[in-house]
Amino acid sequence: MNFCHTCGKQVSLKIPDNDDRKRYVCDNCGEIHYQNPRIIVCTIPCFEDRILLCRRAIEPRLGFWTLPGGFMENEETTLEGATRETLEEACARIKIHGLYTLFNLPHINQVHLFYRSSLLDLDYAAGAESLEVELFRQDEIPWEEIAFPAVGNTLELYFRDLVHGEFPVRSADVLLTDDGKRYIKSHH
Amino acid sequence: MNFCHTCGKQVSLKIPDNDDRKRYVCDNCGEIHYQNPRIIVCTIPCFEDRILLCRRAIEPRLGFWTLPGGFMENEETTLEGATRETLEEACARIKIHGLYTLFNLPHINQVHLFYRSSLLDLDYAAGAESLEVELFRQDEIPWEEIAFPAVGNTLELYFRDLVHGEFPVRSADVLLTDDGKRYIKSHH
Repeated sequence: MNFCHTCGKQVSLKIPDNDDRKRYVCDNCGEIHYQNPRIIVCTIPCFEDRILLCRRAIEPRLGFWTLPGGFMENEETTLEGATRETLEEACARIKIHGLYTLFNLPHINQVHLFYRSSLLDLDYAAGAESLEVELFRQDEIPWEEIAFPAVGNTLELYFRDLVHGEFPVRSADVLLTDDGKRYIKSHH
Repeated sequence: MNFCHTCGKQVSLKIPDNDDRKRYVCDNCGEIHYQNPRIIVCTIPCFEDRILLCRRAIEPRLGFWTLPGGFMENEETTLEGATRETLEEACARIKIHGLYTLFNLPHINQVHLFYRSSLLDLDYAAGAESLEVELFRQDEIPWEEIAFPAVGNTLELYFRDLVHGEFPVRSADVLLTDDGKRYIKSHH
């Protein structure tokens, strides 16, 4: 950030009065430009014993499989966002059952939420950001080609919980090792 | 938003290519300035059968009681943010047990997360944004002076779940009626 989006003058990185961390503050009008984590809303769309995955048509991780999801928008709820993203990426209509996993990704300032859901019909198809969309049984999941650790972890937990039919909400952090590898640290 | 924070030239509100909603787009460098909901991280700090509340020293709802919480910052996790806010607002050290409630507030583009926690000691005090900080038993809670619907609802649910000692994660939307009154619509 170089300029104030309100008055167009230069900003400086400094600690405002009564604050304890650096913010972009306008040199002219004094506006403080706060920057905060963004929310990614995703679903686990199920049909009988199968889960719908999307093969990514965009970077990052083009060609890898993921659960449908994307940035939560202003003026919507997490459920509305997750439902919208599932329609956009997999052309799939769902009924949402509830929150299942929450992941913090502090290195990219994101929080990912995954919602359990059921497909309302089988008229799914690849949306603009997907190469293909397919239903997988547990033993068919392309584990080696999953796009993101949070997606793989959510699928593992889901199939484990499916045995008992109970799905408590679980949360974890996706962190980086010193050499930049991602690993999952569960909160429980 | 009037100006691009990267190049300082004017922005226009328009729908970018391959998008379906209006964004602020720079007329000069083309940067798209996405705006997304922010996360408020809060805790329910417990000590035996009492809960710690803070009386707000700032607007909105100055003088009303709330659970400690505030904006999640970049580069932190939800747990770190909730712990930090509890220290800032109530000078209280806690151990977090788990996520308890999630509220969408789409009219102000916020998602509020409340975490169950235990006070590690009784050396709490009013932080800069609190007038006073106090422990309340269920029958002592100042129900008529609670600052926000999500806080009141979280406290109600908590005391109800406390009877059985089980605290499933619950979520809801805080919505506005046509005449601007807030009401809670549970997801379950």
